[in-house]
Amino acid sequence: MSANLREPDRPESRIQRQMRSMGERARRAARVMASVEPGEKNAALFAIAEALVGDSKQILAANARDLRDARDKLDDAGLERLELTPARIERMAEGLRQVAALADPIGGITDLNYRPSGIQVGRMRVPLGVVGIIFESRPNVTADAAALCLKSGNAALLRGGSESMHSNQAIAACIARGLRAASLPSDAVQVVETTDREAVAAMLDMPGHIDVIVPRGGKGLIEFVSNHARMPVIKHLDGVCHVYIDDDADADKAIAIAVNAKTQRYGTCNTMETLLVAESVAESILVPLARDLMQTGVSLRGCVATRRLLGTDVEPASDADWAEEYLAPVLAVKIVADMDEAIEHIERWSSRHTDAIVTENLTRARAFLRAVDSASVMVNASTRFADGFEYGLGAEIGISTDKLHARGPVGLEGLTSQKYVVFGDGHVR
Amino acid sequence: MSANLREPDRPESRIQRQMRSMGERARRAARVMASVEPGEKNAALFAIAEALVGDSKQILAANARDLRDARDKLDDAGLERLELTPARIERMAEGLRQVAALADPIGGITDLNYRPSGIQVGRMRVPLGVVGIIFESRPNVTADAAALCLKSGNAALLRGGSESMHSNQAIAACIARGLRAASLPSDAVQVVETTDREAVAAMLDMPGHIDVIVPRGGKGLIEFVSNHARMPVIKHLDGVCHVYIDDDADADKAIAIAVNAKTQRYGTCNTMETLLVAESVAESILVPLARDLMQTGVSLRGCVATRRLLGTDVEPASDADWAEEYLAPVLAVKIVADMDEAIEHIERWSSRHTDAIVTENLTRARAFLRAVDSASVMVNASTRFADGFEYGLGAEIGISTDKLHARGPVGLEGLTSQKYVVFGDGHVR
Repeated sequence: MSANLREPDRPESRIQRQMRSMGERARRAARVMASVEPGEKNAALFAIAEALVGDSKQILAANARDLRDARDKLDDAGLERLELTPARIERMAEGLRQVAALADPIGGITDLNYRPSGIQVGRMRVPLGVVGIIFESRPNVTADAAALCLKSGNAALLRGGSESMHSNQAIAACIARGLRAASLPSDAVQVVETTDREAVAAMLDMPGHIDVIVPRGGKGLIEFVSNHARMPVIKHLDGVCHVYIDDDADADKAIAIAVNAKTQRYGTCNTMETLLVAESVAESILVPLARDLMQTGVSLRGCVATRRLLGTDVEPASDADWAEEYLAPVLAVKIVADMDEAIEHIERWSSRHTDAIVTENLTRARAFLRAVDSASVMVNASTRFADGFEYGLGAEIGISTDKLHARGPVGLEGLTSQKYVVFGDGHVR
Repeated sequence: MSANLREPDRPESRIQRQMRSMGERARRAARVMASVEPGEKNAALFAIAEALVGDSKQILAANARDLRDARDKLDDAGLERLELTPARIERMAEGLRQVAALADPIGGITDLNYRPSGIQVGRMRVPLGVVGIIFESRPNVTADAAALCLKSGNAALLRGGSESMHSNQAIAACIARGLRAASLPSDAVQVVETTDREAVAAMLDMPGHIDVIVPRGGKGLIEFVSNHARMPVIKHLDGVCHVYIDDDADADKAIAIAVNAKTQRYGTCNTMETLLVAESVAESILVPLARDLMQTGVSLRGCVATRRLLGTDVEPASDADWAEEYLAPVLAVKIVADMDEAIEHIERWSSRHTDAIVTENLTRARAFLRAVDSASVMVNASTRFADGFEYGLGAEIGISTDKLHARGPVGLEGLTSQKYVVFGDGHVR
């Protein structure tokens, strides 16, 4: 399998060798983890939670070192993401306990049916194997991602941002202690220690050692991982989400949903970035809605009809606006003739993350649900609900806008696969 | 989206332009197909079946031309695969009618539950979009694959082998007529007409136009597609399948299963290629089993212990034998100390297609099922059962040894995905 890691003629670098060795240990640990009983995994999760709380002082000291080193490199928002507090450590621990409380996803057999030949065929849910997670500055991802991988019977190779390296290592020490306390292989969760960027490239070039990669962070990271990974990637690049207010929308619901979808949080991937409004309700709904949005500090960029209706406070929108994920108090607005035009606009510009219709019309709601090809399609609800916790997955490793394997919020099930199991009594063909 | 097809500085070739245009038409057709009602799809399937039978003469004439052109290029087995007969055309038509009879996989909503927030969240099964199928000499794949793509609401781009080009085109004409008869877009199934190999390369370079590629044919084709496709591939490369005869195996069942798994057909991917036998039953089971196999014409390659037991009729096996997919009356045999050694051997050498244990011991059967990480894991049944029809999928587009998305035999469900659907009543976060 090591052949995957390097070209035949190029000697392996020190970092490549180190990553390959971690990959081999992860693979061995994954084999053990696949058959571990739920109680053992949960015992490890509780032991890790306890270690985190018990080691709070050391974790905070390591984090203080990261914060000091990062002072000149990160802006305030970045430093805020990097910072750990006793409350945040307690939340990490609580997250681990919550994952322990989830139903074990592994080993369940479904659809076990007798076939005409007499064999019984079913499907057993199994771990993927080794999950690689590459993330940026939030050190809590170390604990969160480790918990999900562990619970789903996978081994994890975690590579955090260089800014959070000391915090990550302090958390990693707690994870290793918890695994040992539950008699599980400590290689089941390994944190890459080097800050060398070559380690990321080496991970992406190890399809024999890593079964799936989950990048968590900014667009630059996700693009880099998608373009270079030689194994499947669970990812979403953009969140250009739409709300379409239909002719038969209830005005109060439409305004509440659009305001919430845009303003509850500006920086999240499920925030609305483009509002589509049916011509027939532009006057009755868009006018008061635009006032509410602008009062909250949202600036609008509109199509010609929107500017004609709302006036020149609204900047003109270009194609670049339809494609843009603002992640800011800015909203693109387009007045459309009808639902068909809205669906066409979504088909062309949506990033296929989350799109919603507001309507009381059952037939159009049904048609919108079928026609819009996005990971989440909503009727009369805010796009902000597109989230693993809101969907009841219990936890979320990320959101996928891909169609194969995992789509939408990805919980424990996204870290598993199903194999066929066949039972016979000496059956032959 | 056309940007996907070519490097910015290289001019698009005639074939690339042609393929891109087919891809764009497929994408448009896919949008229509996604919302088509089950009855319309079934009407098209029946109409295509009727057209095939009605056009038998033209299809046979086209096939005769292919056979004549291929006489010097293909061996007897190849010509046999290429040949169509009235009975084979009737079987193609019957296959279409059978696919029509399957439950429609699209639009079903599952797990629709209320969440604490009041929203209702479920998952709707949807088509993947555009499926590319690249296959070799069997012209019936044109009709089979078209049927599965159509039923699952996808558009299909089919590229058959150059040897079967005239047959494929005759079948394609029937498909187009059937689609038109059911008022479905004829671009929903397009058959690439050019025999230029550049067309395959162009298809693999169109991730914006083709959502998934299914290669069907020999190892060379599958490797080429896997190495060059820029979109996900549903494939299996090797079928190195194992049967392990455990200490507690029933001798009659073990012999029946091993003989069937090896000799029912030599050339299929689910044929056993390596037999593992627990030391304690080598004398009682392997000796009569080996006699049966050799009488059927199977030559054995064994480990040292096997040769000591069975004599020098058995050639010595090397590591190359453990890795080999013979697809021939040859079998590698290894005597192992116990199930753990068998599982280790499988872990190291299996292609993760199908592996079986023969045992009456419940605890070991359970352990084998959990520990063996293959697409199909069997207890007391012949590996030959690993097949979409035997598993009740109704039809099979291929078998996957990948873990993500589809695993094992791939039927209609493997050509679909699930999106989240959310219903609210004006709900906001």
